[in-house]
Amino acid sequence: MLNDDLNKLIQMKRSLVCVGLDIDIERIPSCLLSELDPLFAFNKAIIEATADYVSAYKLNIAFYESLGLPGWELLERTLTVIPRGIMIIADAKRADIANTSRKYAETFFETYNFDAITVSPYMGMDSVTPFLEYEDKTTFILCLTSNAGSSDFQRLKVDDGDPLYIKVAEKALAWNFLYGNCGLVVGGTHTNEIREIRDSAPDLPFLIPGIGAQGGNLELAVVNGTDKYGLSALINSSRTIVYATSDRTFAEVARARAKNLRDQINMLISVQKNPGMLGQN
Amino acid sequence: MLNDDLNKLIQMKRSLVCVGLDIDIERIPSCLLSELDPLFAFNKAIIEATADYVSAYKLNIAFYESLGLPGWELLERTLTVIPRGIMIIADAKRADIANTSRKYAETFFETYNFDAITVSPYMGMDSVTPFLEYEDKTTFILCLTSNAGSSDFQRLKVDDGDPLYIKVAEKALAWNFLYGNCGLVVGGTHTNEIREIRDSAPDLPFLIPGIGAQGGNLELAVVNGTDKYGLSALINSSRTIVYATSDRTFAEVARARAKNLRDQINMLISVQKNPGMLGQN
Repeated sequence: MLNDDLNKLIQMKRSLVCVGLDIDIERIPSCLLSELDPLFAFNKAIIEATADYVSAYKLNIAFYESLGLPGWELLERTLTVIPRGIMIIADAKRADIANTSRKYAETFFETYNFDAITVSPYMGMDSVTPFLEYEDKTTFILCLTSNAGSSDFQRLKVDDGDPLYIKVAEKALAWNFLYGNCGLVVGGTHTNEIREIRDSAPDLPFLIPGIGAQGGNLELAVVNGTDKYGLSALINSSRTIVYATSDRTFAEVARARAKNLRDQINMLISVQKNPGMLGQN
Repeated sequence: MLNDDLNKLIQMKRSLVCVGLDIDIERIPSCLLSELDPLFAFNKAIIEATADYVSAYKLNIAFYESLGLPGWELLERTLTVIPRGIMIIADAKRADIANTSRKYAETFFETYNFDAITVSPYMGMDSVTPFLEYEDKTTFILCLTSNAGSSDFQRLKVDDGDPLYIKVAEKALAWNFLYGNCGLVVGGTHTNEIREIRDSAPDLPFLIPGIGAQGGNLELAVVNGTDKYGLSALINSSRTIVYATSDRTFAEVARARAKNLRDQINMLISVQKNPGMLGQN
């Protein structure tokens, strides 16, 4: 969607929280194992419990794809229980030559009707534009990822001394000029670099994973990662919310964690930013 | 598989040809449209017609994934009709943080039992090693891709003045040291750079797309892209072989084209290289 529309959504929900629906049959509460479709029951319960407090759900496609056909069916069913007015992100990290990227875009934006996707920048502009051409969808380009391997290539200094991730941010800014629907993935584990990337791309929406299980600092991610109004960012949490406990109370606990994360973020914004319509808690 | 084993396979088949099974319902011969499963009938006919002349088939996952569940079923059925002794490559261009890459590796190496995969390097070592850890499988890292967008980031000069794609080749060489099963994707459209990459990675297997419809020069790709014995390379052709004609003779024509491509490559090698066991035509 247009970056402005994403901000409207965030303002409407008063939440920067994105919950990652990373399914794992070995981690879901054992009380669900007697269900006909335990993973679907898990996703449904998590969604119903957390929907009040989130602006987005992120489905990492790897977890679904690895289950074969039942995984794709699960994905499709899961999408049907996510309420309208919440962004649904395909964390797919795809990209290929143009005619092939077009197929990936079709898959996620048409066949499954996701609102957003994550895309790898390595193959450059013609691998990314087939996604951007869906003007009502958001394309988040991997910029500085949350993992250790991000230092292998993303931090290499290029040309004038800027790291590669800054070049990616600059290109994304240029690509955003096409349709106004381009964002960045910036790992919450790199709290200083988030500030640098935000300075390079003041208005682009950031999808920020890596808070929680991966160890990112929430306060710095929020303060450095949001725009000057405390908008244009989605803070993702997956395992910390959905696998908070493995007993019967998992949905309640997930709800409390999602609310708590939303409130913590909003508190930081109301103290440190000029939240405008985001308002007080 | 081990790079040595790939070379044995190539020597056994006396072929560097890889055929890309890029399915497209709008391009398959109309005589197949009355079949119960036209795309499967197409793949089966192409495989039966070309198997004598190829060392590998490459399935670009985007084309299958975009069809939803029937696409995955088609993929699975297609794999069952590929004879043993031919490498089957999942052209998936995946990679994510380690625990997620592990899921992708499971999908393609276990659920579907591919022999090889293409992987994007952007997220670095821990995103790639979950694939490499399958020692009997080959992981081809995107190095210099065949598309125009390859100049956006891959050609940026880093640190000591080398382009990023050389850094990727050097890292892949280091990663290959782990299990001996790491290769590179090098677009056949960049004939001079193939030589440069080959010099950086003398023994790594190259998967070389971009010959044919994308305009790469076969002679230069073969001479510059193979190792000193004329081995360690798979030359991919998709549309030029599988969509050579749309009439009833499509399979025969594909067979003739595959044989012709094999023979042209072997001729170039026998003249310009030291083919050893590859022998004469």
